[in-house]
Amino acid sequence: MNFNEIITLDKADALANKRQEFALPENILYLDGNSLGALPKAVKPRVAEVVAEQWGNHLIRSWNDHHWIDLPTRVGEKIAPLIGAAKGQVICGDSISVNLFKLLSCALSFNSGRSVVLSTRDNFPTDLYMVQGLSDLLGTEQCQLQLVEEQLIEQNLTDSVAVLLLTQVNFRTGQLLDMEKLTRLAHEKGILVIWDLAHSAGAIPVELDNCQVDFAVGCGYKYLNGGPGAPAFLYVAKRHQAAAKQPLSGWMGHAKPFAFSKDYQPASNINQFQCGTPSVIAMSALDAALDVWHDVDMVEVRRKSIALSNAFISIMNTHDCLHNLQLCSPEIAEQRGSQLAFSRADAFAICQALIEKGVIADFRAPNILRFGFTPLYTSFEDIWNAVTILADVVKSKLYTESRFNLAVKVT
Amino acid sequence: MNFNEIITLDKADALANKRQEFALPENILYLDGNSLGALPKAVKPRVAEVVAEQWGNHLIRSWNDHHWIDLPTRVGEKIAPLIGAAKGQVICGDSISVNLFKLLSCALSFNSGRSVVLSTRDNFPTDLYMVQGLSDLLGTEQCQLQLVEEQLIEQNLTDSVAVLLLTQVNFRTGQLLDMEKLTRLAHEKGILVIWDLAHSAGAIPVELDNCQVDFAVGCGYKYLNGGPGAPAFLYVAKRHQAAAKQPLSGWMGHAKPFAFSKDYQPASNINQFQCGTPSVIAMSALDAALDVWHDVDMVEVRRKSIALSNAFISIMNTHDCLHNLQLCSPEIAEQRGSQLAFSRADAFAICQALIEKGVIADFRAPNILRFGFTPLYTSFEDIWNAVTILADVVKSKLYTESRFNLAVKVT
Repeated sequence: MNFNEIITLDKADALANKRQEFALPENILYLDGNSLGALPKAVKPRVAEVVAEQWGNHLIRSWNDHHWIDLPTRVGEKIAPLIGAAKGQVICGDSISVNLFKLLSCALSFNSGRSVVLSTRDNFPTDLYMVQGLSDLLGTEQCQLQLVEEQLIEQNLTDSVAVLLLTQVNFRTGQLLDMEKLTRLAHEKGILVIWDLAHSAGAIPVELDNCQVDFAVGCGYKYLNGGPGAPAFLYVAKRHQAAAKQPLSGWMGHAKPFAFSKDYQPASNINQFQCGTPSVIAMSALDAALDVWHDVDMVEVRRKSIALSNAFISIMNTHDCLHNLQLCSPEIAEQRGSQLAFSRADAFAICQALIEKGVIADFRAPNILRFGFTPLYTSFEDIWNAVTILADVVKSKLYTESRFNLAVKVT
Repeated sequence: MNFNEIITLDKADALANKRQEFALPENILYLDGNSLGALPKAVKPRVAEVVAEQWGNHLIRSWNDHHWIDLPTRVGEKIAPLIGAAKGQVICGDSISVNLFKLLSCALSFNSGRSVVLSTRDNFPTDLYMVQGLSDLLGTEQCQLQLVEEQLIEQNLTDSVAVLLLTQVNFRTGQLLDMEKLTRLAHEKGILVIWDLAHSAGAIPVELDNCQVDFAVGCGYKYLNGGPGAPAFLYVAKRHQAAAKQPLSGWMGHAKPFAFSKDYQPASNINQFQCGTPSVIAMSALDAALDVWHDVDMVEVRRKSIALSNAFISIMNTHDCLHNLQLCSPEIAEQRGSQLAFSRADAFAICQALIEKGVIADFRAPNILRFGFTPLYTSFEDIWNAVTILADVVKSKLYTESRFNLAVKVT
């Protein structure tokens, strides 16, 4: 692949005009939107308006006048079409971790004769930690975590499993799991399924309803570009809502929160999965960020995502010095999400050297270099330039392990 | 009390200059800071900087470069002196409801031979709902809620009680409970105590350490002025932290979150009470809002708060038409927080008519009109004008129940 081909790809890119809706810093090649999405231009004026006008001038009246009270459902409904969910099944709020606790408790209560929560050893740690927290609270007779390798999920779907908890796209390798198949196989064994969409919502087409998924959680601050630590979301299939029960029964999930009754009575719909008062500023930022998607076809996003990662690999192949970066992601593009991961002993140092040269990728312990592709604002020329700089860094050996200290990074 | 006396009080007000640090709307008398605090001027530029510069330009690097990762502890340490807590005991994040779930679970695990959570019938509903949620999850043998009237708390402190859960200032009446005495009496019976400071942090001097309190939660969006739905905070006494265990064990509470270990290992300090990734924008707003307090003496705040509410009653007494507003708050100012509540059958209609005339008070079901006093930005002249308008409204009978529909309001 040469530079002319790259230019041709950019010219033919149906999503090219979306880039102008983002406030991207100059002289930066940002390949970390899978960790923190870039800033959509619409967020800045919206947040300023919420602070100065809605909060500052209208004060408490904005709960009604500016419909703050409806934000969790309104934002949920904006996310729904991106994940293949019909109306009334998605709500925004809290974090993935807190939302998982709600859904795990709920799913276990539906399958109360069983106690095993099956997940993968390489699932994102907080997902596993939340199961461990619930297990410590309830005891292992009611909740116990069983971990397997990704390729052994199917054969471990036994009738002692209550809940299958999977992340659709592996945060490290980008491995994409087959949602339709695994959900179907789990259901055949009477297992309920919770999907974590942290690395898939906004990255690939997701079909929750079509796959008959029971529950899902997802992240507001990666491919949905809602800002650092943006509120998360959760999905509960309509068929489960009437019988659903979750233990984080805060007043916002009450059927009539403003009746101030002393007895909890859950809302009969998705609202019951709210807990405390949500941050209006944070949720408004995500609300504004989601408007970027109004004219975007997820099929087009997927097509470009695959083309970007394939271009990345093709350009790498033209640089001999990059041959010993070991691809940890599936070689077949259709089997991965919107990222590429490579292992190499000095991955951390390379990552830091790239950042110094304006290529923002990220490092995941112990030795993985991760590049995220965000089709709404990543161009093919970005990819060309990033790989060129990567080759320069590796060739020049301008980095050494000792120059860098292990820094904190947030997925 | 006449207008000249009011002017004299304003002239002598040691906190008068704090008002200029808030962006208060014109032609509004805001007596609802106990529901949503007003906007501190410092918040607007801070939020704009976090969005455009920290997120927009520095992107993922800001977790290190702008110290996002330390926000929960940094904000916690800013709140600590306002509630009488030494360092290392307060952390910011999640909502009061979610934080209560953490602390209730933790307190019950410390007192595992007992199951009763004692609280008051008139506690803020979400506090009771969270106990009910935990009780449904664990079963009543491990967690059961017992509700009593405020005046019967003491005699119900028996050795079957595991946890006493109280709100220091009643959200409706403003009744102030004796934190020192009730904590001491509870401890004598081996009971652990959780205090909800929603209506006391920033409103009255709070002495958590001196009162030997075990646990506390509090609100960022009332007297701390952190913005609508601002993150909450929690307090765990140092002596409990080593043995503490809480079930919402998200990755931010891990001893080494960025080691991405599959096994949860709680941080050994207050950090273990974090759960998922917090909203940086929301927490930064609260962080900026808290700077208002740097030169404020809580004793002075209390003195002015009492003077404001006493002035309110004195001015009311000069209006015959207001005699049938029944005071529900304690008559003795030292026994109430920073608010006054009055009952009257047409309270809702009066409240709506006041709002139309620019006096923002609030209504609490079934028949309570609530006025909050926020000494940092409420002047004595505000009080004079608010009572004058209240008298006009009641005299003129310009309101009728039928003109108004019950509107949603958030405490």
